[in-house]
Amino acid sequence: MELLRTVEEVRRWRAEVRSAGRRLGFVPTMGALHAGHRSLIDTARAANEAVAVSIFVNPTQFGPQEDFAHYPRPLEADLALCREAGVDAVFHPEPETMYPLGFCTWVEVRGPLAESFEGAVRPGHFRGVATVVLKLFEIVQPDRAYFGQKDAQQACLVRRMIADLNLPVELHVCPTVREADGLALSSRNVYLTPEQRRMAPILFQALQRAEAAILQGERRAQTVIQIMEETMATVPEARLDYAAVVDPNSFLPVKTISDDVLLLLAARFGNTRLIDNLPISFPRNA
Amino acid sequence: MELLRTVEEVRRWRAEVRSAGRRLGFVPTMGALHAGHRSLIDTARAANEAVAVSIFVNPTQFGPQEDFAHYPRPLEADLALCREAGVDAVFHPEPETMYPLGFCTWVEVRGPLAESFEGAVRPGHFRGVATVVLKLFEIVQPDRAYFGQKDAQQACLVRRMIADLNLPVELHVCPTVREADGLALSSRNVYLTPEQRRMAPILFQALQRAEAAILQGERRAQTVIQIMEETMATVPEARLDYAAVVDPNSFLPVKTISDDVLLLLAARFGNTRLIDNLPISFPRNA
Repeated sequence: MELLRTVEEVRRWRAEVRSAGRRLGFVPTMGALHAGHRSLIDTARAANEAVAVSIFVNPTQFGPQEDFAHYPRPLEADLALCREAGVDAVFHPEPETMYPLGFCTWVEVRGPLAESFEGAVRPGHFRGVATVVLKLFEIVQPDRAYFGQKDAQQACLVRRMIADLNLPVELHVCPTVREADGLALSSRNVYLTPEQRRMAPILFQALQRAEAAILQGERRAQTVIQIMEETMATVPEARLDYAAVVDPNSFLPVKTISDDVLLLLAARFGNTRLIDNLPISFPRNA
Repeated sequence: MELLRTVEEVRRWRAEVRSAGRRLGFVPTMGALHAGHRSLIDTARAANEAVAVSIFVNPTQFGPQEDFAHYPRPLEADLALCREAGVDAVFHPEPETMYPLGFCTWVEVRGPLAESFEGAVRPGHFRGVATVVLKLFEIVQPDRAYFGQKDAQQACLVRRMIADLNLPVELHVCPTVREADGLALSSRNVYLTPEQRRMAPILFQALQRAEAAILQGERRAQTVIQIMEETMATVPEARLDYAAVVDPNSFLPVKTISDDVLLLLAARFGNTRLIDNLPISFPRNA
Protein backbone atom coordinates (compact mmCIF):
# COMPACT_ATOMS: atom_id res chain seq x y z
CA MET A 1 0.00 0.00 0.00
CA GLU A 2 1.31 3.42 -0.98
CA LEU A 3 1.21 6.31 1.51
CA LEU A 4 1.00 9.50 -0.55
CA ARG A 5 1.57 12.89 1.04
CA THR A 6 1.67 15.35 -1.87
CA VAL A 7 -0.53 16.16 -4.84
CA GLU A 8 2.34 15.27 -7.17
CA GLU A 9 2.67 11.81 -5.62
CA VAL A 10 -1.04 11.18 -6.11
CA ARG A 11 -0.92 12.39 -9.72
CA ARG A 12 1.98 10.04 -10.47
CA TRP A 13 0.23 7.08 -8.83
CA ARG A 14 -3.05 7.94 -10.58
CA ALA A 15 -1.37 8.03 -13.99
CA GLU A 16 0.00 4.50 -13.42
CA VAL A 17 -3.43 3.20 -12.40
CA ARG A 18 -4.99 4.80 -15.47
CA SER A 19 -2.40 3.54 -17.92
CA ALA A 20 -2.87 0.02 -16.51
CA GLY A 21 -6.56 0.37 -17.39
CA ARG A 22 -7.63 -0.05 -13.76
CA ARG A 23 -10.83 1.67 -12.61
CA LEU A 24 -10.34 3.65 -9.41
CA GLY A 25 -12.72 3.66 -6.44
CA PHE A 26 -12.20 6.40 -3.85
CA VAL A 27 -13.25 6.69 -0.19
CA PRO A 28 -12.63 10.17 1.26
CA THR A 29 -12.42 10.10 5.07
CA MET A 30 -11.28 12.16 8.04
CA GLY A 31 -9.61 9.06 9.49
CA ALA A 32 -10.58 7.51 12.84
CA LEU A 33 -11.77 4.68 10.65
CA HIS A 34 -14.46 2.31 11.89
CA ALA A 35 -16.60 -0.48 10.46
CA GLY A 36 -18.66 2.10 8.55
CA HIS A 37 -15.59 3.27 6.64
CA ARG A 38 -14.55 -0.36 6.26
CA SER A 39 -17.83 -1.18 4.55
CA LEU A 40 -17.26 1.72 2.12
CA ILE A 41 -13.78 0.40 1.37
CA ASP A 42 -15.07 -3.15 0.92
CA THR A 43 -17.75 -1.93 -1.48
CA ALA A 44 -15.16 0.05 -3.43
CA ARG A 45 -12.78 -2.93 -3.40
CA ALA A 46 -15.42 -5.24 -4.86
CA ALA A 47 -16.27 -2.94 -7.77
CA ASN A 48 -12.91 -1.43 -8.79
CA GLU A 49 -9.46 -2.69 -9.74
CA ALA A 50 -7.85 0.01 -7.59
CA VAL A 51 -8.96 1.67 -4.34
CA ALA A 52 -7.70 4.91 -2.80
CA VAL A 53 -8.61 6.28 0.63
CA SER A 54 -7.92 9.83 1.76
CA ILE A 55 -7.35 10.60 5.44
CA PHE A 56 -7.62 14.33 6.03
CA VAL A 57 -9.20 16.12 8.96
CA ASN A 58 -10.44 19.06 6.94
CA PRO A 59 -10.13 22.27 8.98
CA THR A 60 -12.50 24.29 6.78
CA GLN A 61 -15.53 22.19 7.65
CA PHE A 62 -15.19 22.79 11.40
CA GLY A 63 -16.64 25.88 13.06
CA PRO A 64 -14.48 27.92 15.46
CA GLN A 65 -16.28 26.35 18.47
CA GLU A 66 -16.07 22.82 17.11
CA ASP A 67 -13.78 19.87 17.76
CA PHE A 68 -11.12 20.25 15.04
CA ALA A 69 -8.19 20.23 17.49
CA HIS A 70 -9.54 17.24 19.41
CA TYR A 71 -10.85 15.21 16.52
CA PRO A 72 -9.30 11.71 16.85
CA ARG A 73 -6.27 11.03 14.60
CA PRO A 74 -5.21 7.40 15.17
CA LEU A 75 -3.10 7.28 12.00
CA GLU A 76 -1.32 3.98 12.60
CA ALA A 77 -4.56 2.12 13.30
CA ASP A 78 -6.16 3.77 10.25
CA LEU A 79 -3.31 2.68 7.98
CA ALA A 80 -3.48 -0.85 9.40
CA LEU A 81 -7.22 -1.00 8.64
CA CYS A 82 -6.61 0.22 5.08
CA ARG A 83 -3.78 -2.27 4.55
CA GLU A 84 -5.87 -5.12 5.83
CA ALA A 85 -8.80 -4.05 3.62
CA GLY A 86 -6.63 -4.20 0.52
CA VAL A 87 -6.47 -0.45 -0.14
CA ASP A 88 -3.90 0.40 -2.84
CA ALA A 89 -3.08 3.96 -1.81
CA VAL A 90 -3.79 6.30 1.10
CA PHE A 91 -3.59 10.04 0.52
CA HIS A 92 -2.77 11.78 3.79
CA PRO A 93 -1.88 15.42 3.10
CA GLU A 94 -0.89 18.14 5.53
CA PRO A 95 -3.37 21.03 5.92
CA GLU A 96 -0.83 23.33 4.19
CA THR A 97 -0.84 21.01 1.18
CA MET A 98 -4.59 21.38 0.81
CA TYR A 99 -4.82 25.05 1.84
CA PRO A 100 -1.58 26.84 0.95
CA LEU A 101 -1.07 30.50 1.81
CA GLY A 102 -3.36 32.72 -0.24
CA PHE A 103 -6.00 30.04 -0.82
CA CYS A 104 -9.27 31.83 -1.64
CA THR A 105 -11.46 29.68 -3.92
CA TRP A 106 -14.56 28.03 -2.49
CA VAL A 107 -17.27 25.74 -3.74
CA GLU A 108 -20.63 26.59 -2.29
CA VAL A 109 -23.98 24.90 -2.64
CA ARG A 110 -26.79 27.37 -1.92
CA GLY A 111 -30.37 26.86 -0.87
CA PRO A 112 -32.09 24.58 1.63
CA LEU A 113 -29.93 21.56 0.82
CA ALA A 114 -26.88 23.34 2.22
CA GLU A 115 -28.45 25.88 4.53
CA SER A 116 -30.96 23.84 6.56
CA PHE A 117 -30.38 21.27 9.33
CA GLU A 118 -26.62 20.59 9.54
CA GLY A 119 -26.01 23.67 7.40
CA ALA A 120 -28.04 25.83 9.79
CA VAL A 121 -26.47 24.40 12.96
CA ARG A 122 -22.96 24.48 11.50
CA PRO A 123 -22.54 27.65 9.36
CA GLY A 124 -19.78 27.23 6.79
CA HIS A 125 -19.62 23.47 7.33
CA PHE A 126 -20.92 22.47 3.91
CA ARG A 127 -18.82 25.09 2.15
CA GLY A 128 -15.79 23.36 3.67
CA VAL A 129 -17.15 19.94 2.72
CA ALA A 130 -17.95 20.86 -0.89
CA THR A 131 -14.58 22.56 -1.35
CA VAL A 132 -12.48 19.74 0.07
CA VAL A 133 -14.44 17.03 -1.74
CA LEU A 134 -14.03 18.85 -5.05
CA LYS A 135 -10.30 19.26 -4.38
CA LEU A 136 -9.93 15.58 -3.48
CA PHE A 137 -11.82 14.60 -6.63
CA GLU A 138 -9.50 16.78 -8.73
CA ILE A 139 -6.40 15.35 -7.11
CA VAL A 140 -7.41 11.68 -7.02
CA GLN A 141 -9.60 11.71 -10.16
CA PRO A 142 -11.61 8.65 -9.15
CA ASP A 143 -14.00 6.84 -11.45
CA ARG A 144 -16.29 6.16 -8.48
CA ALA A 145 -16.55 7.71 -5.02
CA TYR A 146 -18.11 6.14 -1.93
CA PHE A 147 -19.92 8.05 0.84
CA GLY A 148 -21.93 6.86 3.82
CA GLN A 149 -25.68 7.33 4.23
CA LYS A 150 -24.92 8.22 7.87
CA ASP A 151 -24.06 11.77 6.75
CA ALA A 152 -27.14 11.96 4.56
CA GLN A 153 -27.11 15.69 3.94
CA GLN A 154 -23.44 15.59 3.00
CA ALA A 155 -24.04 12.75 0.55
CA CYS A 156 -26.98 14.63 -0.97
CA LEU A 157 -24.90 17.81 -1.25
CA VAL A 158 -22.05 15.94 -2.96
CA ARG A 159 -24.57 14.42 -5.39
CA ARG A 160 -25.86 17.92 -6.17
CA MET A 161 -22.33 19.30 -6.62
CA ILE A 162 -21.37 16.46 -8.96
CA ALA A 163 -24.45 17.10 -11.10
CA ASP A 164 -24.22 20.91 -11.08
CA LEU A 165 -20.49 21.05 -11.83
CA ASN A 166 -20.50 18.12 -14.29
CA LEU A 167 -17.85 16.25 -12.30
CA PRO A 168 -16.88 13.03 -14.10
CA VAL A 169 -17.27 10.81 -11.04
CA GLU A 170 -19.91 8.23 -10.15
CA LEU A 171 -21.29 8.60 -6.62
CA HIS A 172 -22.21 5.59 -4.48
CA VAL A 173 -23.95 6.12 -1.15
CA CYS A 174 -23.67 3.08 1.12
CA PRO A 175 -25.95 2.08 4.03
CA THR A 176 -25.25 3.21 7.59
CA VAL A 177 -23.40 0.64 9.69
CA ARG A 178 -24.68 0.32 13.27
CA GLU A 179 -23.59 -1.16 16.57
CA ALA A 180 -25.59 -4.14 17.83
CA ASP A 181 -27.76 -1.76 19.87
CA GLY A 182 -28.53 0.44 16.86
CA LEU A 183 -26.13 3.33 17.42
CA ALA A 184 -24.84 4.53 14.04
CA LEU A 185 -21.06 4.22 13.81
CA SER A 186 -19.33 7.60 14.01
CA SER A 187 -15.80 8.68 14.76
CA ARG A 188 -17.32 10.99 17.36
CA ASN A 189 -18.82 8.11 19.40
CA VAL A 190 -15.47 7.88 21.25
CA TYR A 191 -16.32 11.23 22.88
CA LEU A 192 -19.31 9.70 24.70
CA THR A 193 -19.05 8.87 28.40
CA PRO A 194 -20.12 5.29 29.24
CA GLU A 195 -23.41 6.71 30.51
CA GLN A 196 -23.99 8.74 27.31
CA ARG A 197 -22.99 5.75 25.20
CA ARG A 198 -25.66 3.69 26.92
CA MET A 199 -28.30 6.29 26.06
CA ALA A 200 -27.20 7.13 22.52
CA PRO A 201 -29.20 4.32 20.81
CA ILE A 202 -32.31 6.35 21.59
CA LEU A 203 -31.66 8.13 18.25
CA PHE A 204 -32.14 4.95 16.26
CA GLN A 205 -35.10 3.90 18.43
CA ALA A 206 -36.81 7.21 17.68
CA LEU A 207 -36.19 6.72 13.96
CA GLN A 208 -37.53 3.17 14.10
CA ARG A 209 -40.69 4.18 15.95
CA ALA A 210 -41.29 6.88 13.35
CA GLU A 211 -40.73 4.35 10.57
CA ALA A 212 -43.16 1.92 12.19
CA ALA A 213 -45.82 4.61 12.34
CA ILE A 214 -45.37 5.38 8.64
CA LEU A 215 -45.52 1.70 7.76
CA GLN A 216 -48.77 1.52 9.74
CA GLY A 217 -50.24 4.26 7.60
CA GLU A 218 -49.33 7.54 9.30
CA ARG A 219 -48.98 10.20 6.60
CA ARG A 220 -48.80 13.41 8.64
CA ALA A 221 -45.15 14.46 8.98
CA GLN A 222 -46.02 16.48 12.08
CA THR A 223 -47.22 13.34 13.87
CA VAL A 224 -44.11 11.43 12.80
CA ILE A 225 -41.92 14.25 14.12
CA GLN A 226 -43.83 14.21 17.38
CA ILE A 227 -43.14 10.48 17.76
CA MET A 228 -39.42 11.14 17.34
CA GLU A 229 -39.51 14.09 19.76
CA GLU A 230 -41.41 12.12 22.38
CA THR A 231 -39.03 9.19 22.10
CA MET A 232 -36.01 11.49 22.46
CA ALA A 233 -37.65 13.17 25.47
CA THR A 234 -37.52 9.87 27.36
CA VAL A 235 -33.77 10.50 27.70
CA PRO A 236 -33.46 13.89 29.39
CA GLU A 237 -29.67 13.93 28.88
CA ALA A 238 -30.25 14.10 25.09
CA ARG A 239 -30.81 17.68 23.91
CA LEU A 240 -32.58 17.52 20.58
CA ASP A 241 -31.26 19.79 17.80
CA TYR A 242 -33.89 18.79 15.26
CA ALA A 243 -36.25 16.00 14.25
CA ALA A 244 -37.55 16.25 10.69
CA VAL A 245 -39.19 14.52 7.75
CA VAL A 246 -37.69 15.74 4.48
CA ASP A 247 -37.57 15.08 0.76
CA PRO A 248 -34.39 13.00 0.32
CA ASN A 249 -33.22 15.05 -2.68
CA SER A 250 -34.01 18.62 -1.72
CA PHE A 251 -34.00 18.32 2.09
CA LEU A 252 -37.17 20.41 2.04
CA PRO A 253 -39.55 19.49 4.87
CA VAL A 254 -42.45 17.31 3.84
CA LYS A 255 -45.95 17.92 5.20
CA THR A 256 -47.77 14.87 3.93
CA ILE A 257 -45.84 11.67 3.30
CA SER A 258 -46.68 10.44 -0.17
CA ASP A 259 -43.31 9.43 -1.59
CA ASP A 260 -39.82 8.48 -0.37
CA VAL A 261 -38.79 10.53 2.64
CA LEU A 262 -35.83 10.80 4.93
CA LEU A 263 -36.22 10.92 8.71
CA LEU A 264 -33.58 13.15 10.32
CA LEU A 265 -32.40 13.46 13.90
CA ALA A 266 -29.64 15.44 15.59
CA ALA A 267 -29.04 15.63 19.34
CA ARG A 268 -26.36 16.54 21.85
CA PHE A 269 -25.20 14.32 24.67
CA GLY A 270 -23.15 16.65 26.82
CA ASN A 271 -20.71 18.27 24.38
CA THR A 272 -21.01 15.51 21.83
CA ARG A 273 -23.31 16.01 18.89
CA LEU A 274 -24.70 12.95 17.13
CA ILE A 275 -26.75 12.74 13.95
CA ASP A 276 -28.70 9.87 12.46
CA ASN A 277 -31.25 9.31 9.73
CA LEU A 278 -33.47 6.68 8.17
CA PRO A 279 -34.53 6.61 4.52
CA ILE A 280 -38.12 5.47 4.05
CA SER A 281 -38.94 3.98 0.68
CA PHE A 282 -42.59 4.68 0.22
CA PRO A 283 -44.34 2.00 -1.81
CA ARG A 284 -45.09 3.43 -5.27
CA ASN A 285 -48.46 1.74 -5.70
CA ALA A 286 -49.86 1.98 -2.19
CA MET B 1 -15.34 19.61 -37.32
CA GLU B 2 -17.81 18.25 -34.78
CA LEU B 3 -20.58 20.46 -33.41
CA LEU B 4 -21.40 19.13 -29.94
CA ARG B 5 -24.53 20.26 -28.10
CA THR B 6 -24.75 18.04 -25.03
CA VAL B 7 -22.43 17.01 -22.22
CA GLU B 8 -22.75 13.37 -23.29
CA GLU B 9 -21.62 14.22 -26.84
CA VAL B 10 -18.55 16.00 -25.48
CA ARG B 11 -17.72 13.12 -23.15
CA ARG B 12 -17.93 10.66 -26.05
CA TRP B 13 -15.73 12.83 -28.28
CA ARG B 14 -13.27 13.43 -25.43
CA ALA B 15 -12.91 9.69 -24.77
CA GLU B 16 -11.98 9.14 -28.43
CA VAL B 17 -9.38 11.90 -28.33
CA ARG B 18 -7.92 10.48 -25.13
CA SER B 19 -7.78 6.90 -26.35
CA ALA B 20 -6.01 8.09 -29.49
CA GLY B 21 -3.36 9.62 -27.24
CA ARG B 22 -4.04 13.15 -28.52
CA ARG B 23 -3.45 16.05 -26.14
CA LEU B 24 -6.39 18.46 -26.04
CA GLY B 25 -6.16 22.26 -26.12
CA PHE B 26 -9.31 24.19 -25.19
CA VAL B 27 -10.42 27.74 -25.93
CA PRO B 28 -13.55 28.76 -23.98
CA THR B 29 -15.38 31.67 -25.63
CA MET B 30 -18.70 33.49 -25.66
CA GLY B 31 -18.62 33.48 -29.47
CA ALA B 32 -18.58 36.65 -31.59
CA LEU B 33 -15.11 35.45 -32.46
CA HIS B 34 -12.47 37.91 -33.65
CA ALA B 35 -8.74 37.85 -34.35
CA GLY B 36 -8.05 37.70 -30.60
CA HIS B 37 -9.90 34.41 -30.30
CA ARG B 38 -8.28 33.27 -33.52
CA SER B 39 -4.84 33.79 -32.03
CA LEU B 40 -5.84 31.69 -29.00
CA ILE B 41 -7.04 28.94 -31.33
CA ASP B 42 -3.86 29.14 -33.42
CA THR B 43 -1.72 28.88 -30.29
CA ALA B 44 -3.74 25.89 -29.10
CA ARG B 45 -3.57 24.34 -32.57
CA ALA B 46 0.22 24.59 -32.65
CA ALA B 47 0.73 22.90 -29.28
CA ASN B 48 -1.95 20.17 -29.18
CA GLU B 49 -3.07 17.29 -31.37
CA ALA B 50 -6.71 18.22 -30.79
CA VAL B 51 -8.42 21.57 -30.25
CA ALA B 52 -11.87 22.26 -28.83
CA VAL B 53 -13.64 25.62 -28.66
CA SER B 54 -16.72 26.33 -26.57
CA ILE B 55 -19.21 28.97 -27.65
CA PHE B 56 -21.53 29.83 -24.78
CA VAL B 57 -22.86 33.23 -23.79
CA ASN B 58 -22.87 32.53 -20.06
CA PRO B 59 -25.91 34.17 -18.45
CA THR B 60 -24.53 33.93 -14.89
CA GLN B 61 -21.64 36.31 -15.56
CA PHE B 62 -23.92 39.14 -16.71
CA GLY B 63 -25.53 41.53 -14.25
CA PRO B 64 -29.27 42.29 -14.51
CA GLN B 65 -28.51 45.67 -16.14
CA GLU B 66 -25.94 44.24 -18.54
CA ASP B 67 -26.01 43.22 -22.19
CA PHE B 68 -26.78 39.49 -21.99
CA ALA B 69 -29.80 39.68 -24.26
CA HIS B 70 -28.01 41.85 -26.83
CA TYR B 71 -24.62 40.19 -26.72
CA PRO B 72 -23.75 39.33 -30.36
CA ARG B 73 -24.34 35.68 -31.38
CA PRO B 74 -23.15 35.28 -34.99
CA LEU B 75 -23.05 31.49 -34.79
CA GLU B 76 -22.54 30.72 -38.50
CA ALA B 77 -19.57 33.10 -38.79
CA ASP B 78 -18.12 31.71 -35.56
CA LEU B 79 -18.35 28.13 -36.82
CA ALA B 80 -16.77 29.17 -40.12
CA LEU B 81 -13.85 30.77 -38.29
CA CYS B 82 -13.38 27.62 -36.18
CA ARG B 83 -13.56 25.36 -39.24
CA GLU B 84 -11.04 27.48 -41.08
CA ALA B 85 -8.72 27.51 -38.04
CA GLY B 86 -8.68 23.72 -37.91
CA VAL B 87 -10.73 23.32 -34.73
CA ASP B 88 -11.71 19.68 -34.13
CA ALA B 89 -14.84 20.23 -32.05
CA VAL B 90 -17.08 23.11 -31.01
CA PHE B 91 -19.17 22.76 -27.86
CA HIS B 92 -22.22 25.00 -28.13
CA PRO B 93 -24.65 24.14 -25.33
CA GLU B 94 -28.03 25.64 -24.55
CA PRO B 95 -28.28 27.62 -21.28
CA GLU B 96 -30.55 24.86 -19.88
CA THR B 97 -27.81 22.31 -20.56
CA MET B 98 -25.37 24.28 -18.44
CA TYR B 99 -27.86 25.45 -15.80
CA PRO B 100 -30.66 22.92 -15.46
CA LEU B 101 -33.58 23.52 -13.09
CA GLY B 102 -32.44 23.37 -9.48
CA PHE B 103 -28.82 24.31 -10.21
CA CYS B 104 -27.36 25.72 -6.99
CA THR B 105 -23.58 25.07 -6.83
CA TRP B 106 -21.19 27.95 -7.33
CA VAL B 107 -17.47 28.44 -7.44
CA GLU B 108 -16.39 31.65 -5.81
CA VAL B 109 -12.98 33.26 -5.53
CA ARG B 110 -12.90 35.64 -2.58
CA GLY B 111 -10.68 38.60 -1.77
CA PRO B 112 -9.34 41.50 -3.81
CA LEU B 113 -8.61 39.39 -6.89
CA ALA B 114 -12.33 38.78 -7.38
CA GLU B 115 -13.85 41.75 -5.56
CA SER B 116 -11.87 44.73 -6.86
CA PHE B 117 -11.99 46.47 -10.28
CA GLU B 118 -14.18 44.35 -12.60
CA GLY B 119 -15.43 42.44 -9.54
CA ALA B 120 -16.46 45.69 -7.85
CA VAL B 121 -18.08 47.22 -10.94
CA ARG B 122 -19.80 43.96 -11.90
CA PRO B 123 -21.00 42.19 -8.71
CA GLY B 124 -21.42 38.45 -9.27
CA HIS B 125 -19.53 38.57 -12.56
CA PHE B 126 -16.53 36.54 -11.43
CA ARG B 127 -18.68 34.05 -9.58
CA GLY B 128 -20.37 33.36 -12.91
CA VAL B 129 -17.02 33.20 -14.69
CA ALA B 130 -15.40 30.83 -12.18
CA THR B 131 -18.44 28.56 -12.14
CA VAL B 132 -18.81 28.28 -15.90
CA VAL B 133 -15.07 27.85 -16.49
CA LEU B 134 -14.92 25.05 -13.92
CA LYS B 135 -17.96 23.38 -15.52
CA LEU B 136 -16.43 23.67 -18.99
CA PHE B 137 -13.17 22.21 -17.69
CA GLU B 138 -15.06 19.27 -16.15
CA ILE B 139 -17.02 18.66 -19.33
CA VAL B 140 -14.20 19.10 -21.86
CA GLN B 141 -11.34 17.89 -19.61
CA PRO B 142 -8.65 19.71 -21.57
CA ASP B 143 -4.93 19.20 -21.04
CA ARG B 144 -4.35 22.90 -21.71
CA ALA B 145 -6.66 25.92 -21.71
CA TYR B 146 -6.08 29.23 -23.50
CA PHE B 147 -7.26 32.64 -22.25
CA GLY B 148 -6.57 36.18 -23.48
CA GLN B 149 -4.52 38.74 -21.56
CA LYS B 150 -7.20 41.27 -22.63
CA ASP B 151 -9.37 40.07 -19.71
CA ALA B 152 -6.43 40.16 -17.31
CA GLN B 153 -8.39 39.88 -14.09
CA GLN B 154 -10.37 36.92 -15.45
CA ALA B 155 -7.16 35.14 -16.49
CA CYS B 156 -5.65 35.78 -13.08
CA LEU B 157 -8.77 34.52 -11.34
CA VAL B 158 -8.80 31.34 -13.45
CA ARG B 159 -5.14 30.80 -12.59
CA ARG B 160 -6.00 31.15 -8.89
CA MET B 161 -8.96 28.77 -9.18
CA ILE B 162 -6.86 26.15 -10.98
CA ALA B 163 -4.23 26.30 -8.23
CA ASP B 164 -6.66 26.39 -5.29
CA LEU B 165 -8.89 23.59 -6.56
CA ASN B 166 -6.02 21.43 -7.94
CA LEU B 167 -7.57 21.37 -11.41
CA PRO B 168 -5.52 19.16 -13.73
CA VAL B 169 -5.29 21.71 -16.54
CA GLU B 170 -2.40 23.84 -17.77
CA LEU B 171 -3.30 27.52 -18.24
CA HIS B 172 -1.88 29.59 -21.09
CA VAL B 173 -2.54 33.33 -21.19
CA CYS B 174 -1.95 34.81 -24.65
CA PRO B 175 -1.15 38.43 -25.57
CA THR B 176 -3.90 40.93 -26.38
CA VAL B 177 -4.54 41.36 -30.10
CA ARG B 178 -5.11 44.97 -31.20
CA GLU B 179 -6.45 46.86 -34.18
CA ALA B 180 -3.91 48.88 -36.18
CA ASP B 181 -4.79 51.98 -34.10
CA GLY B 182 -4.22 50.16 -30.82
CA LEU B 183 -7.81 49.34 -29.77
CA ALA B 184 -7.86 45.94 -28.06
CA LEU B 185 -10.08 43.48 -29.90
CA SER B 186 -13.34 42.81 -28.06
CA SER B 187 -16.67 41.36 -29.06
CA ARG B 188 -18.19 44.49 -27.55
CA ASN B 189 -16.42 46.83 -29.99
CA VAL B 190 -19.33 46.30 -32.40
CA TYR B 191 -21.50 48.33 -30.00
CA LEU B 192 -19.41 51.47 -30.61
CA THR B 193 -20.76 54.23 -32.85
CA PRO B 194 -18.30 55.32 -35.57
CA GLU B 195 -17.52 58.40 -33.46
CA GLN B 196 -16.90 56.31 -30.31
CA ARG B 197 -14.84 53.84 -32.33
CA ARG B 198 -12.61 56.70 -33.48
CA MET B 199 -12.01 57.74 -29.86
CA ALA B 200 -11.66 54.31 -28.27
CA PRO B 201 -7.89 53.93 -28.93
CA ILE B 202 -7.38 56.55 -26.22
CA LEU B 203 -7.37 53.61 -23.77
CA PHE B 204 -4.25 52.12 -25.31
CA GLN B 205 -2.64 55.54 -25.69
CA ALA B 206 -3.12 56.17 -21.97
CA LEU B 207 -1.57 52.80 -21.17
CA GLN B 208 1.38 53.50 -23.48
CA ARG B 209 2.07 56.93 -21.97
CA ALA B 210 2.02 55.38 -18.51
CA GLU B 211 4.40 52.67 -19.68
CA ALA B 212 6.73 55.28 -21.18
CA ALA B 213 6.83 57.17 -17.88
CA ILE B 214 7.75 53.98 -16.00
CA LEU B 215 10.44 53.15 -18.56
CA GLN B 216 11.80 56.68 -18.02
CA GLY B 217 12.09 56.00 -14.31
CA GLU B 218 8.77 56.98 -12.75
CA ARG B 219 8.18 54.78 -9.71
CA ARG B 220 5.21 56.47 -8.03
CA ALA B 221 2.02 54.64 -8.96
CA GLN B 222 0.00 57.76 -8.18
CA THR B 223 1.86 59.71 -10.86
CA VAL B 224 1.43 56.89 -13.37
CA ILE B 225 -2.32 56.78 -12.62
CA GLN B 226 -2.49 60.54 -13.09
CA ILE B 227 -0.90 60.21 -16.52
CA MET B 228 -3.59 57.69 -17.51
CA GLU B 229 -6.37 59.85 -16.07
CA GLU B 230 -5.14 62.98 -17.83
CA THR B 231 -4.84 61.15 -21.13
CA MET B 232 -8.36 59.76 -20.78
CA ALA B 233 -9.64 63.25 -19.90
CA THR B 234 -8.64 64.49 -23.35
CA VAL B 235 -11.65 62.55 -24.67
CA PRO B 236 -14.64 63.92 -22.74
CA GLU B 237 -16.94 61.24 -24.23
CA ALA B 238 -14.95 58.60 -22.33
CA ARG B 239 -16.17 58.18 -18.74
CA LEU B 240 -13.39 56.56 -16.75
CA ASP B 241 -14.36 53.69 -14.42
CA TYR B 242 -10.88 53.16 -13.05
CA ALA B 243 -7.17 53.60 -13.80
CA ALA B 244 -4.85 51.56 -11.63
CA VAL B 245 -1.40 50.08 -11.12
CA VAL B 246 -1.65 46.62 -9.52
CA ASP B 247 0.35 43.56 -8.63
CA PRO B 248 -0.32 41.18 -11.55
CA ASN B 249 -0.96 38.18 -9.24
CA SER B 250 -3.01 39.65 -6.40
CA PHE B 251 -4.54 42.68 -8.16
CA LEU B 252 -3.67 44.65 -5.03
CA PRO B 253 -2.83 48.30 -5.84
CA VAL B 254 0.87 49.08 -5.88
CA LYS B 255 2.21 52.31 -4.36
CA THR B 256 5.82 52.19 -5.46
CA ILE B 257 6.72 50.35 -8.64
CA SER B 258 9.60 48.01 -7.87
CA ASP B 259 8.59 44.82 -9.63
CA ASP B 260 6.30 43.64 -12.44
CA VAL B 261 3.01 45.54 -12.46
CA LEU B 262 -0.15 45.59 -14.48
CA LEU B 263 -1.67 48.85 -15.71
CA LEU B 264 -5.48 48.70 -15.75
CA LEU B 265 -8.07 50.88 -17.45
CA ALA B 266 -11.85 50.71 -17.77
CA ALA B 267 -14.07 53.34 -19.37
CA ARG B 268 -17.51 53.80 -20.83
CA PHE B 269 -18.24 55.23 -24.25
CA GLY B 270 -21.97 55.88 -24.15
CA ASN B 271 -23.46 52.57 -22.98
CA THR B 272 -20.46 50.55 -24.04
CA ARG B 273 -17.91 49.60 -21.44
CA LEU B 274 -14.35 48.83 -22.58
CA ILE B 275 -11.42 47.50 -20.58
CA ASP B 276 -7.74 47.30 -21.42
CA ASN B 277 -4.48 46.60 -19.63
CA LEU B 278 -0.72 46.54 -20.13
CA PRO B 279 1.68 44.24 -18.26
CA ILE B 280 4.95 45.98 -17.39
CA SER B 281 7.92 43.69 -16.87
CA PHE B 282 10.11 45.58 -14.50
CA PRO B 283 13.81 44.84 -15.03
CA ARG B 284 15.02 42.66 -12.15
CA ASN B 285 18.47 44.28 -11.82
CA ALA B 286 17.65 47.92 -12.40
